[in-house]
Amino acid sequence: MKTFHNPEQFQREMEKRRRQKTIGFVPTMGALHEGHLSLVRRARRENQIVVVSLFVNPLQFGPREDFKKYPRTFKRDRALLAGEKVDFLFMPSAASFYPGRFQTFVEVINLSRGLCGRFRPGHFRGVATVAAKLFNLVRPHRAYFGTKDYQQAVLIKRMARDLNFNLEVKLLPTIRDQDGLALSSRNAYLTPKERARALSISRSLVWAQREIRQGRRNLRRLRRGILRELKRGLSRVDYVEFAEPETLQPVGSVRGRFVIAVAGWVGKTRLIDNAIMQRKTKSGKRKALEPLRGN
Amino acid sequence: MKTFHNPEQFQREMEKRRRQKTIGFVPTMGALHEGHLSLVRRARRENQIVVVSLFVNPLQFGPREDFKKYPRTFKRDRALLAGEKVDFLFMPSAASFYPGRFQTFVEVINLSRGLCGRFRPGHFRGVATVAAKLFNLVRPHRAYFGTKDYQQAVLIKRMARDLNFNLEVKLLPTIRDQDGLALSSRNAYLTPKERARALSISRSLVWAQREIRQGRRNLRRLRRGILRELKRGLSRVDYVEFAEPETLQPVGSVRGRFVIAVAGWVGKTRLIDNAIMQRKTKSGKRKALEPLRGN
Repeated sequence: MKTFHNPEQFQREMEKRRRQKTIGFVPTMGALHEGHLSLVRRARRENQIVVVSLFVNPLQFGPREDFKKYPRTFKRDRALLAGEKVDFLFMPSAASFYPGRFQTFVEVINLSRGLCGRFRPGHFRGVATVAAKLFNLVRPHRAYFGTKDYQQAVLIKRMARDLNFNLEVKLLPTIRDQDGLALSSRNAYLTPKERARALSISRSLVWAQREIRQGRRNLRRLRRGILRELKRGLSRVDYVEFAEPETLQPVGSVRGRFVIAVAGWVGKTRLIDNAIMQRKTKSGKRKALEPLRGN
Repeated sequence: MKTFHNPEQFQREMEKRRRQKTIGFVPTMGALHEGHLSLVRRARRENQIVVVSLFVNPLQFGPREDFKKYPRTFKRDRALLAGEKVDFLFMPSAASFYPGRFQTFVEVINLSRGLCGRFRPGHFRGVATVAAKLFNLVRPHRAYFGTKDYQQAVLIKRMARDLNFNLEVKLLPTIRDQDGLALSSRNAYLTPKERARALSISRSLVWAQREIRQGRRNLRRLRRGILRELKRGLSRVDYVEFAEPETLQPVGSVRGRFVIAVAGWVGKTRLIDNAIMQRKTKSGKRKALEPLRGN
């Protein structure tokens, strides 16, 4: 595994490689877990070259957010990636990535408005900007994102299409611990007690899934039930939303595919989760729900 | 000269070509004049493949601006480009370039604020967005812009650097008619009388140049003199600015290199122009000023 820190050198290497081989790219902020590794493994299967970036992007953190304390486990990350036979690791410094007069930002207007966008102003601008820059540096054929960060994933997919990036954005399912907790680098912040409380998030989604499977279709009642379960564990709930899976616009009824997205706090840790729901197919058969635990 | 209308097909062709050859790119809105052709000729000299885009970009026109009446002379443009041995012409439809849910915009925060940015809200967002999209579609090694649109040129250069586009942005001097009028597709709007009045723009810059060459360094007096000359011909002046050539921040004194940028109206036609000024080199010798007429 070859590591690059300098963006220009890295870009030259990638340009050379793309002429000959297919490139799969997994952008990360490090503190890697099985979720990231599932993306790397898929990239490994589908491409001749696998590139991972590791960059804690200051642009996507608000002034009162956890940029400084975000877990940095570079040595361990590097070993994990080498173990997955990653070919190139890109780890730029913030100074080389956002030099002096940097002032260009990418905004995905509609998709960044709702859900986490209401609670983290500027976050998705930072996400879209770093993704555009990384796409230009790597020029991958495929880029892989997990759907635990559902809004981020669909927003980046939209950005890539809108700006004509010549690549395929692949969205892969959330990886969970045995007990249902969605893997997140931020889980490292949780004390054992907080971790137990955080389980109310996945439980609330499992409950909603079961209700919907059993034919419940009253959105208000579903929302109330989810909130009830969330409040058992969370100190604060940011939102519970039922949204169209591509536009993220709120849905008015339980029909077709939609995503239930939730966000809230356990102590000082903000966690998010979601589940894709599909009540029935048109033929009347029940289709398998998006798997909630593991893969 | 091969013409493409479909962005995806065009992108595939460009990707193939870039593997073998250097690509020079000249983005235009058509209504070509000698200014555009000077860019094409330079691209022809410096690259193995020359690509020109012709797209009247709706995104960079305000709701009350001249998008509808912007001169469209496609047949003539195509003949001119074929005459310059252009290899590929890209002419997308607005519907294929900005499909349905398009919502991603590129903003160059500081550089889009002053000068024309104050009078044309959203204009430079449209410019940066279309340039980013075209850069992704063409993936040129070099892209060529005229400096008649000085703010646009430095803003695109900044955007390309900030977002890590792997290309060189080349800025070429303004081309002028014999009498000094900067070439612009919008000159086609002018009646003969208006055209004569428009000459006050280049005259005001020539006057300022001469004053500075003779050692005048009072910015207020220079501005007043420029305004006096402009008002002889223009119906309205949008601005007269003295700015640092790269950041476009206002300069407080006549020292080193700076740009004088002016914008105003002749009847219903908005015209802009500028000149790079350099008073003296450090050695005390007078350096040649940026040529105001021709190239």
